[in-house]
Amino acid sequence: MLYKRNPQLNKNGELIHLLSTEGLTKDILTQILDTASNFVSVNDREVKKVPLLRGKSVFNLFFENSTRTRTTFEIAAKRLSADVFNLDIARSSASKGETLLDTIDNLSAMAADVFVVRHSESGAPYLIAQHVAPHVHVVNAGDGRHAHPTQGLLDMYTIRHYKKDFSNLRVAIVGDVLHSRVARSDIHALTTLGAAEVRVVGPRTLVPADMASMGVRVFHNLEEGIKDCDVIITLRLQNERMSGALLPSSQEYFKSFGLTEKRLELAKPDAIVMHPGPINRGVEIDSAVVDGPQAVILSQVTFGIAVRMAVMSIVAGNEA
Amino acid sequence: MLYKRNPQLNKNGELIHLLSTEGLTKDILTQILDTASNFVSVNDREVKKVPLLRGKSVFNLFFENSTRTRTTFEIAAKRLSADVFNLDIARSSASKGETLLDTIDNLSAMAADVFVVRHSESGAPYLIAQHVAPHVHVVNAGDGRHAHPTQGLLDMYTIRHYKKDFSNLRVAIVGDVLHSRVARSDIHALTTLGAAEVRVVGPRTLVPADMASMGVRVFHNLEEGIKDCDVIITLRLQNERMSGALLPSSQEYFKSFGLTEKRLELAKPDAIVMHPGPINRGVEIDSAVVDGPQAVILSQVTFGIAVRMAVMSIVAGNEA
Amino acid sequence: MLYKRNPQLNKNGELIHLLSTEGLTKDILTQILDTASNFVSVNDREVKKVPLLRGKSVFNLFFENSTRTRTTFEIAAKRLSADVFNLDIARSSASKGETLLDTIDNLSAMAADVFVVRHSESGAPYLIAQHVAPHVHVVNAGDGRHAHPTQGLLDMYTIRHYKKDFSNLRVAIVGDVLHSRVARSDIHALTTLGAAEVRVVGPRTLVPADMASMGVRVFHNLEEGIKDCDVIITLRLQNERMSGALLPSSQEYFKSFGLTEKRLELAKPDAIVMHPGPINRGVEIDSAVVDGPQAVILSQVTFGIAVRMAVMSIVAGNEA
Repeated sequence: MLYKRNPQLNKNGELIHLLSTEGLTKDILTQILDTASNFVSVNDREVKKVPLLRGKSVFNLFFENSTRTRTTFEIAAKRLSADVFNLDIARSSASKGETLLDTIDNLSAMAADVFVVRHSESGAPYLIAQHVAPHVHVVNAGDGRHAHPTQGLLDMYTIRHYKKDFSNLRVAIVGDVLHSRVARSDIHALTTLGAAEVRVVGPRTLVPADMASMGVRVFHNLEEGIKDCDVIITLRLQNERMSGALLPSSQEYFKSFGLTEKRLELAKPDAIVMHPGPINRGVEIDSAVVDGPQAVILSQVTFGIAVRMAVMSIVAGNEA
Repeated sequence: MLYKRNPQLNKNGELIHLLSTEGLTKDILTQILDTASNFVSVNDREVKKVPLLRGKSVFNLFFENSTRTRTTFEIAAKRLSADVFNLDIARSSASKGETLLDTIDNLSAMAADVFVVRHSESGAPYLIAQHVAPHVHVVNAGDGRHAHPTQGLLDMYTIRHYKKDFSNLRVAIVGDVLHSRVARSDIHALTTLGAAEVRVVGPRTLVPADMASMGVRVFHNLEEGIKDCDVIITLRLQNERMSGALLPSSQEYFKSFGLTEKRLELAKPDAIVMHPGPINRGVEIDSAVVDGPQAVILSQVTFGIAVRMAVMSIVAGNEA
Repeated sequence: MLYKRNPQLNKNGELIHLLSTEGLTKDILTQILDTASNFVSVNDREVKKVPLLRGKSVFNLFFENSTRTRTTFEIAAKRLSADVFNLDIARSSASKGETLLDTIDNLSAMAADVFVVRHSESGAPYLIAQHVAPHVHVVNAGDGRHAHPTQGLLDMYTIRHYKKDFSNLRVAIVGDVLHSRVARSDIHALTTLGAAEVRVVGPRTLVPADMASMGVRVFHNLEEGIKDCDVIITLRLQNERMSGALLPSSQEYFKSFGLTEKRLELAKPDAIVMHPGPINRGVEIDSAVVDGPQAVILSQVTFGIAVRMAVMSIVAGNEA
């Protein structure tokens, strides 16, 4: 897709949709992280609510099902005091022969403010963002293999929380990088935020050598890949990869690429271990690591609420 | 069904349930439209909420699934500050062998204020309205082929918005009038509001000649039917009609009864085109008309929220 | 399961989770009923809300589907001004290979305050309560055949409402006592609250003689079992019992154990008849009794909202 102007920004360069971490400046990424920082404390309060989106309508449009992610957006929106509408969108419109854009027009006409969109097709949130009325803001909650920007941003928040500064960091992303929208969103954000080195680690079938063109170093050996790293992001191994020709079995995968305590010793002693969830214990990561002192996986979840609050409040506050 | 008294009204003649546009006076229809007019502006505000139903409980009881319609009622109720409960009613009670009226009694006992009911059986909302405790108000969100009164009312609102006065209007309802609860609700409302002429237009299988008894003119030719009309309401063609003996195919239908730009020229130059959605582009209406300047289909959606706010706030405000 | 300390209580003996009526003192049971009493009036008000849980997050985690029970908790939580999140938990996590405790950790990390848990496995809410972070309170909404404590408590509320004092009461629980978590929760609560006599009544396959060890009298004849009782609690007969060897047919069951008007005459003249719903009319109870003057089944539903408000506000107000 080619655009004259970044469709995520208005003519003043302010964020009006969040579609991808690609193309966002360091300033905008930092603005989101700083805003999220304020919301982290809201989630610890007795009354976990701020009135920023009071009377606004947030629509969860999950064309691809994901209860977990939908819930995090629902929590974030309600803590901003918005009204939230969960549409069983897959069942409702497509089955009646309506086009995607007619569905979108229809929902826009109900005076929506924010559409949170998950779709199995890469680019669907872009199509929607280009089509919606100016009062509607689109947040991409995952599109195909393309992007999952709020996951990328919560990963950045977590890294910044534990490591303060990106400029000296060596970060390894381990697993099925090829099919991962999380990996893509992390790589763009890490590059923009100035991480010293970003590595991608996995078998040749899941981490092709030409990924180096994204500005990352490619490793096909876990021990080498995580050596001296500050941050290890383990990716969930989708079960559907197993059945095909890409991987022999989950046991085989674990033998070569599962993160164990022993292997983790190769990273820096204070390295943190991340995972976007849900975890397959004993496949991409060993239980002892998940439950160990270096794992910050539950912090990611907590920060994820604050980051989504930040994203929704920022886009809804800017005029198209 | 025979009633001594209109079950929609209390003994002072005030609206306590909305079951059908049939049997409502011009005054009551006008009260609903005038109230909706106030709510249209609420939906444009920064904070799209009024406290009219604060602390009230609205139950969406969709015995027949319809995500779209359910959502419009949920939005309307939340903008009135009500608490909304969406019950997956089909799955829950019927499957456990409970009778409809036991289900209704049970939900009433939870201190419900409004039941929004959709049911595949004509008359089900009447049965419920006659049975409920005095503190519960019933709004029909579509029952069988019988009535869809909020759709009828939002159509009236849309017509009044664009045409101001009903008394000089010629309105054509085009398509599967026979099976359409929307058509029935529109015809009753248009007649009561004093439309000069109401026409129904469609093939003989879907618009039998004896519909003239409803006070409408029957046409089996689209060109004749829409000639000199001020308003054209195109109806959605249900896919399930295709398979039976009623219609040959959707292409054949479009050839004879699809609304094209060329055919639209036969209506008045300032005629408006309406559709209850979801649209089948290229079946009952051509894409160029949907996207053209005379279509007011998205305005119908916008006004629909305000009309549903009006209906719920009026019935909930009147004592049984 | 063995515990050093009752996991429902903090070290001051205050209720922090509601897992079972077993092990709760008369004081705590009475505190819940007294608190519920205040909330009964809230449900009659124009604005049915109190701000006790404003800004708190209540998660409905129904691993076993039950629209009815989930809705009563949703109503109770919203009337306490909490934000409520309904997770389609069965579909979301288990299918992705995540462990129950990882799911729970994840949701805790979203700053949850209350988990309402229904699970087909007896003991699951205990497991969760022992695992959660201190800021999370667990309410058991039914686990396997073990306990359904809010149903037990609303039954106690109803009995106290109509009979004032437990000390002279003779209570009969009729039906499939063996498989009933409701019966178990009722028996523990009645015993603690000092009911004079608790009887269980049903066929030998559903009421084994060794139930006497629970401190109840066992009857296999309905007429004898309900004779001179003040309260009759009829249990729902699960359809799935029919197909097995436990019962011949629902007609046969009704002939021997169905509560009819004639049989009801054997109880005290002012005896009340209760049922947890949904009712199978003509199986465990005759329609004439359901609709008769001694049935208080709908009052149970009404009081159930208040009791659930009481439980959630009490546990959320106590520190772990």
